[in-house]
Amino acid sequence: MSFDGATLYVSVGPNPRLVRMFLAEKGVTIPEQVIDLRGGENRRAPYLEMNPGGQMPALRLASGQVIAETVPICEYVEDVAPEPAFIGPTSEERAETRMWVRRVEQLYVRPMIDAYRYGHALALFGERMRCIPEATPELKSLARDGEAWIETNMVGPFLAGDRMSLADIIMYCMMDFAEQREVLTRDPSLVKLPEWFDRMAARPSAESSRALAY
Amino acid sequence: MSFDGATLYVSVGPNPRLVRMFLAEKGVTIPEQVIDLRGGENRRAPYLEMNPGGQMPALRLASGQVIAETVPICEYVEDVAPEPAFIGPTSEERAETRMWVRRVEQLYVRPMIDAYRYGHALALFGERMRCIPEATPELKSLARDGEAWIETNMVGPFLAGDRMSLADIIMYCMMDFAEQREVLTRDPSLVKLPEWFDRMAARPSAESSRALAY
Repeated sequence: MSFDGATLYVSVGPNPRLVRMFLAEKGVTIPEQVIDLRGGENRRAPYLEMNPGGQMPALRLASGQVIAETVPICEYVEDVAPEPAFIGPTSEERAETRMWVRRVEQLYVRPMIDAYRYGHALALFGERMRCIPEATPELKSLARDGEAWIETNMVGPFLAGDRMSLADIIMYCMMDFAEQREVLTRDPSLVKLPEWFDRMAARPSAESSRALAY
Repeated sequence: MSFDGATLYVSVGPNPRLVRMFLAEKGVTIPEQVIDLRGGENRRAPYLEMNPGGQMPALRLASGQVIAETVPICEYVEDVAPEPAFIGPTSEERAETRMWVRRVEQLYVRPMIDAYRYGHALALFGERMRCIPEATPELKSLARDGEAWIETNMVGPFLAGDRMSLADIIMYCMMDFAEQREVLTRDPSLVKLPEWFDRMAARPSAESSRALAY
């Protein structure tokens, strides 16, 4: 298990934070380079030449290969350093984690982040990307539906059962972001999810990964 | 490599089709059970008890474990039957495929499918889910931007380079769906992507996976 010569490009925002929290839980250390997201450093050379998607974070390997996108970066890290497993040690557990990652992303992350980008943070993104402010209220309702569905379908202390997984890390970082940025406040009708959130927030990785503020 | 006792639940729609195309390319056969999506069979018991997300497709293993979500199903199949590899034989190739899968999904599939569900197919979905018809034109523009980005960033005959991967299968099935359902017509300014599309359409798996019509 070696990430010699690798660099993790990070910035403010929930996506770099969730990769940092995953790395902290794995016990993997990769040197970081901070990119000025608010100043648009990620949307011009040299960053954009390295990662033409322009988003953060990205992992550059010693070979020069660049892995962008949060989940593929986490999958790569677990591929190279399998233990402790937060995707899963068996095909069946990996499948369960990946299913929960998709549920979290599709039911909660996606409408919440779209509500944020398309409307809530219009002042920040209006000049940079296509925004759809008229969709914001319905997107927030979709994210609310998603939270409720996840609460109903949680069968253990963690999203995918008895073991903490990448799905918990993503959901926690995104819920924390939604609350910090006041995209969504905590739903008072939920019970299990707030308890789970507090357990996640108490983990050292939650604090250490927060070092770069939102 | 065995899927003894497994059942793949399928229906009309591009998501079951892309899993079927992936299985055809892998040379893996799993008995299918057809669910009547248009009749809402996926949104009531017994299907909903098995897959509380309610979407199609789902893979039920002999153990009773149910794997929902297209990409986790494909990942599981490749985990159990690694060759021929369409995610990748090495950590680095898997990372590249997964990055491209996310790009395809985020830049094209997501806005195209949202445009379809939220507005284009309002008559079909208006009674079933939250719809956002006012967002449809901008979502179609986002999908167009995504197609153009993908064309610009294709460096080989396939999306992730020289080897065909899950990313190609997803993009092909979704573009084919968009065209069939007239969500998006072919963009006349594109060159590489239509050629790639025609190469994908010529594969036997493209035809055999189409057996369940959209």
